[in-house]
Amino acid sequence: KSLTIGLIPADGIGREVIPAARQVLEALPSDVMPARLNFVDLDAGFEYFQKHGVALPEQTLAALKGDCDGALFGAVSSPSHKVAGYSSPIVGLRKKMDLYANVRPVISGAAATASGERRAIDMLIIRENTECLYIKEEELHEGADGKYAIAKRRISEFASRRAGEMAFSMALQRDRMRQQVAASERTWKGRPKVTIVHKSNVLSVTDGLWRETVRGVYTGNAEYREGVDIEEQLVDSMVYRMFREPEAFDVVVAPNMYGDIISDGAAALVGSLGLVPSANVGDNFVVGEPVHGSAPDIAGKNIANPIAAIRSAAMLLERTGYASAALAIYRAVDKVLEAGQTKTPDLGGRSTTSDVTEAVCRLL
Amino acid sequence: KSLTIGLIPADGIGREVIPAARQVLEALPSDVMPARLNFVDLDAGFEYFQKHGVALPEQTLAALKGDCDGALFGAVSSPSHKVAGYSSPIVGLRKKMDLYANVRPVISGAAATASGERRAIDMLIIRENTECLYIKEEELHEGADGKYAIAKRRISEFASRRAGEMAFSMALQRDRMRQQVAASERTWKGRPKVTIVHKSNVLSVTDGLWRETVRGVYTGNAEYREGVDIEEQLVDSMVYRMFREPEAFDVVVAPNMYGDIISDGAAALVGSLGLVPSANVGDNFVVGEPVHGSAPDIAGKNIANPIAAIRSAAMLLERTGYASAALAIYRAVDKVLEAGQTKTPDLGGRSTTSDVTEAVCRLL
Ligand SMILES: CC(C)[C@H](C(=O)O)[C@@H](O)C(=O)O
Ligand SMILES: CC(C)[C@H](C(=O)O)[C@@H](O)C(=O)O
Repeated sequence: KSLTIGLIPADGIGREVIPAARQVLEALPSDVMPARLNFVDLDAGFEYFQKHGVALPEQTLAALKGDCDGALFGAVSSPSHKVAGYSSPIVGLRKKMDLYANVRPVISGAAATASGERRAIDMLIIRENTECLYIKEEELHEGADGKYAIAKRRISEFASRRAGEMAFSMALQRDRMRQQVAASERTWKGRPKVTIVHKSNVLSVTDGLWRETVRGVYTGNAEYREGVDIEEQLVDSMVYRMFREPEAFDVVVAPNMYGDIISDGAAALVGSLGLVPSANVGDNFVVGEPVHGSAPDIAGKNIANPIAAIRSAAMLLERTGYASAALAIYRAVDKVLEAGQTKTPDLGGRSTTSDVTEAVCRLL
Repeated sequence: KSLTIGLIPADGIGREVIPAARQVLEALPSDVMPARLNFVDLDAGFEYFQKHGVALPEQTLAALKGDCDGALFGAVSSPSHKVAGYSSPIVGLRKKMDLYANVRPVISGAAATASGERRAIDMLIIRENTECLYIKEEELHEGADGKYAIAKRRISEFASRRAGEMAFSMALQRDRMRQQVAASERTWKGRPKVTIVHKSNVLSVTDGLWRETVRGVYTGNAEYREGVDIEEQLVDSMVYRMFREPEAFDVVVAPNMYGDIISDGAAALVGSLGLVPSANVGDNFVVGEPVHGSAPDIAGKNIANPIAAIRSAAMLLERTGYASAALAIYRAVDKVLEAGQTKTPDLGGRSTTSDVTEAVCRLL
């Protein structure tokens, strides 16, 4: 058996954290990782665009579709001015590969909470990944008072239903996982809960459709109704409550743009964006992607935190059926964080990307 | 001389905090408040809609335009389902009265920072108030895969320019105010700074226009260029940074929806939404409005925090030319907060709305 992973470091620190994640994958002992791993190096990104005029080359898409079981994406730089013909490759990738949900677990480590420093957070954010303002249908017009521009925000029953299904089924799955842990060790003690984020008090049609569709997924399924609680939260209040009582959230499901904002906010709660992984998930493919950006200010210095990318690699393993390998990585990372000896500067330490990567590898 | 203020309590705790604000205004001694105050009670809100089929009656608009120098708006309840014909009265008010900027100061009190509990925050959020997704142009369609809906997001040069002007001029005004305070007492020590929030890496046309227009206001004005620094922040990173280093922000200017989300998030940083005021500002009119909602769960119990509404009343006085009266209110509120004896439950206390209101009045 073998597992073929496309590696797309893209820009900035993506070039450091993706090799780090690869190193960890290669260090997995064969008892937890039975399949042979193959890696395929693939191009994309703003820097690639500047050289070749395309940010997400066809060969990359063809290789992903033809040869790979999953992929890891690093991070992409944003041009500081509008650049003709440029379009974000990660947004394109999500759409072209139909990766319809972006799954972002935000967890405060046992160490942080035991020391009382931070609150117990164990949140899973499901971000719809294919539509909303991300369809990028925008037009510029000349009006009487000068220029104006219109962007379209699309919300469909189809996409909302898929995101909703993902949210409720993951809420149940998380609950099953929790049952395997002693009650005292669980961060979330209650029944599984899904919080539906929207702004239907203003966007009654689009967010109205989102909300009714996600609710419909719930009311139409006996297993969900019996096993999961639901609540709703307006996006502005959501950001407020997330900071006031982050321990109140289990699974959170949101349209694309709100999900983008909320997940960066949640990352702030657990100490650093450098810790938060994500997986872009479709029915047949998964792309792991750290939530952080390309961080041009620290790129090339070997000080970027590789943990978000390493955890994203574990999420990829989880989705492709290698749960024990994923678990081994999660545990090794947790141990490194708990020991607190090897930390990159974003966590207040002085270790390098390589130090952290090696520390994780040693504990596998 | 007289000042006529329209009072629109609207829904829920709006009915408690607006009378509280009025009580404080009436308690202002004549040496700080030379003008006679008149109040006009006006209707609006979801409850009003349920009875009369209209959320923002024409008489209210006519009275505001004809008789009032400014107004105070309480809060509005959101229907829990889409209700035909209902449209948010505060959104309507902002548009109909051309209140093109929503100004939200977020300040951590001296008490909080002196005790080391919280970080020194002295941020002013300028939220564009007339367009973005708030134009509410939405349509529902039937597609091959089921329903889908499209909302339009409008960004214009005209509105962006006005918001930008407001941001840069307020940055300079804040600086002038600061010069009147001992350096050691200032929360913001550096040069004035404006942070432009956008998401032009995805919305290159609409947010591209926003960003270029706001930058254009800056580059076209020598006073701004000499006196103010600017920076940009993608909305997702903005929420992250705001929580990681809130002390890094002075004036923040954002399109409508991002501004809505950011200001609720910032409120979480200073302890409670119940503390954060706002002013909806146009060239000829101002409507003070607490940032919090109608809080149906605590309505009618006399425990809502009146401070956001009281501070909003002070912002109204500031904009209508009564700076000393405004200052007297800000100081009285700060003293009550510093003393820490009289606090509503949202701040961990057991005092009532009336207790807090009276405590503020006594210190005027
Ligand atoms: C780079 C950008 C287009 C992207 C997004 O907004 O989706 C990023 O912020 C993310 O969250 O993956
Ligand atoms: C009630 C709602 C329409 C409103 C808004 O989103 O503008 C509120 O959240 C606010 O911030 O004043």
